[in-house]
Amino acid sequence: MKRFIFLAVLFCALHLTVSAQEALWWKTPTTSPEIHDDRRVTFRLVAPQAKHVEVVGDFLPEGRADMRKTQPNLWEYTTPVPLHSELYSYAFVMDGVRITDPSNVYVTRDVVTMSNIFIVNGPRSHYYQERDVPHGTVSRIWYPCDQLQKMRRATIYTPAGYGASNNTMRYPVLYLLHGMGGDEEAWITLGRVAQIMDNLIAEGKAKPMIVVMPNGNMDQVAAPGYGPDGNVVPTIELPRTCDGTYEQSFPNLVRFIDRNYRTLPRKNSRAIAGLSMGGFHTMMISKEYPDLFDYVGLFSASVKKDVGEVGSPVYDRFHEKLRAQFAKRPALYWIAIGKDDFLYPANVEFCELLDRNRHRHEFIETEGGHIWKNWRFYLKEFAQKIFK
Amino acid sequence: MKRFIFLAVLFCALHLTVSAQEALWWKTPTTSPEIHDDRRVTFRLVAPQAKHVEVVGDFLPEGRADMRKTQPNLWEYTTPVPLHSELYSYAFVMDGVRITDPSNVYVTRDVVTMSNIFIVNGPRSHYYQERDVPHGTVSRIWYPCDQLQKMRRATIYTPAGYGASNNTMRYPVLYLLHGMGGDEEAWITLGRVAQIMDNLIAEGKAKPMIVVMPNGNMDQVAAPGYGPDGNVVPTIELPRTCDGTYEQSFPNLVRFIDRNYRTLPRKNSRAIAGLSMGGFHTMMISKEYPDLFDYVGLFSASVKKDVGEVGSPVYDRFHEKLRAQFAKRPALYWIAIGKDDFLYPANVEFCELLDRNRHRHEFIETEGGHIWKNWRFYLKEFAQKIFK
Repeated sequence: MKRFIFLAVLFCALHLTVSAQEALWWKTPTTSPEIHDDRRVTFRLVAPQAKHVEVVGDFLPEGRADMRKTQPNLWEYTTPVPLHSELYSYAFVMDGVRITDPSNVYVTRDVVTMSNIFIVNGPRSHYYQERDVPHGTVSRIWYPCDQLQKMRRATIYTPAGYGASNNTMRYPVLYLLHGMGGDEEAWITLGRVAQIMDNLIAEGKAKPMIVVMPNGNMDQVAAPGYGPDGNVVPTIELPRTCDGTYEQSFPNLVRFIDRNYRTLPRKNSRAIAGLSMGGFHTMMISKEYPDLFDYVGLFSASVKKDVGEVGSPVYDRFHEKLRAQFAKRPALYWIAIGKDDFLYPANVEFCELLDRNRHRHEFIETEGGHIWKNWRFYLKEFAQKIFK
Repeated sequence: MKRFIFLAVLFCALHLTVSAQEALWWKTPTTSPEIHDDRRVTFRLVAPQAKHVEVVGDFLPEGRADMRKTQPNLWEYTTPVPLHSELYSYAFVMDGVRITDPSNVYVTRDVVTMSNIFIVNGPRSHYYQERDVPHGTVSRIWYPCDQLQKMRRATIYTPAGYGASNNTMRYPVLYLLHGMGGDEEAWITLGRVAQIMDNLIAEGKAKPMIVVMPNGNMDQVAAPGYGPDGNVVPTIELPRTCDGTYEQSFPNLVRFIDRNYRTLPRKNSRAIAGLSMGGFHTMMISKEYPDLFDYVGLFSASVKKDVGEVGSPVYDRFHEKLRAQFAKRPALYWIAIGKDDFLYPANVEFCELLDRNRHRHEFIETEGGHIWKNWRFYLKEFAQKIFK
């Protein structure tokens, strides 16, 4: 064994010092975040020359807090109170520059914002963790998009056992749509889809299902870094997301999935849900093709109903199409919104419209705003209500 | 359209200012890196309060260079000479703290080191780019490991068309192993496996094949962030990588793949290759199970041949087993190493040993050291030589 320890040390040393070798850190600079037994959390940054360091994160009441120099080279911040069970994201701001925590390799991207994540154990985060349960498979596939005449990338979750050689079972499908600026990576990384579905299915709380996460921005064929324009760093202005073409491309995607996966290819085994702009797409697609989806989920949705001026036939005759959709009695039309969400009033208004027209739906109001915390929670709730 | 632009602006504003909404950047702070037409590259960091900023990267002769304040808030560095076609990685060091470039969302992780990447177009990087060719599927699967009595995570590349409903073709399989400290994410992210294979297959230079990238560290079931120990930030000491158990677990993995994928389940349709420690594993596994693999690739391999003191039967009787392997005449035994690699002398020595024993092999010497640049190139070369 000694020889191997020697070898490992040699590897480390060489990796760090010799320029001809890959320059690597084998250990993080310090321990950060440290989650204490009482659920307070300490963040640390080794930055001897910094003048001011703060931590920004979705667990801080003000969204930010100053870090304090506790040793000549070390900045620290400990939350004054225990944190509730949740998956949190954060970053540091060092002398005005937002940086990720060099001691935490769990990094996620949201549009062009990189953040670190950590999980505080407990009931709320139970479903967001990789637990010792059967795991599904997560695939990045390319499928032909007739509208763009191009191949596009999508993320697919297939439940545990799907790929087993002797499995001939067919599965229902949930189509899950991201928000403006997101892409086919958003739900699987920030939304913890694989963990949520693995855990719900293992506990018998959700039916085993396939989850399809396409890219809803028709200006992209794939998430940044995965498309042919590999050199171009995206500066997202207004993505081509609400011109009707994405909605029109959807039946082809459904056909592709039904052809290439062992699906139950019928309305009562298909669900569609989306967050924010994806909720808008969900609303538009489900009413445009009222025979495709029996389960509809609007998560903090942008529920603008009169967008005819965009000039797509998809946005014409909204109320008429909505009536046609509800005349076919969808098994579930589920609307969830946080009380602090800037889209809250619009969602309340939309529900009133549905009420006036006796369109049967469920309305869920939660704390919080237009945030991933809510979208993970909504998915967890919605997934338990479908295909039953 | 106006209404949508308004909506988008509203989204941005709200995302940035209201703490109840997801705090996002919708545009990068500046343009970085900028790859000029003459293949010089400019890096930029907006950091008004920084005292010293440098760029570190594998394209810099010294491994680092000072950035210069060109505007009150902007630091810049432009390479003095055009860069050769390649995929490069870099980071900034701001007042002693290594950070990724906030303007570049292409981030990769190597052990615990986060870096940005960029591609300079040309012949060398041709195969590393997402091109407009048919794309394979990349899946993260979990398979049962008998040795650990646990499920373990692996990355699988299946070539374009593999999943098409009418496809009954069977494919050869390349098993591709990472280095010490790496995991099942290393080859697919840093090694650009999907891009290299997609491009080689599209050009008819490689046979369509399945590529299996398992995790070679028996202390982990999955890469950091994907295992059940979600809260634990890895501080990698000596991974449990060279105690013989990984090698012993390999036939079970091969059996699992042959059972669950449409493989050609025979020696002449199986290849194994690995980098650094993965090269060591490749050497050990291929000689331990001489009927499994007809094609063997050692990329910058750690070719220690007398490691009996570790106490695993896998490392016993090395020469005898090697003789047995070569008596069965493997179709290809391919060794590649950079002249500046710290493992260069050991590889030359190993080749001399093979020569002395008339064990037929190929030996490729390249420029450079123990670096991903070489491993991507070795994969590209090796993939063209197998299953033919």
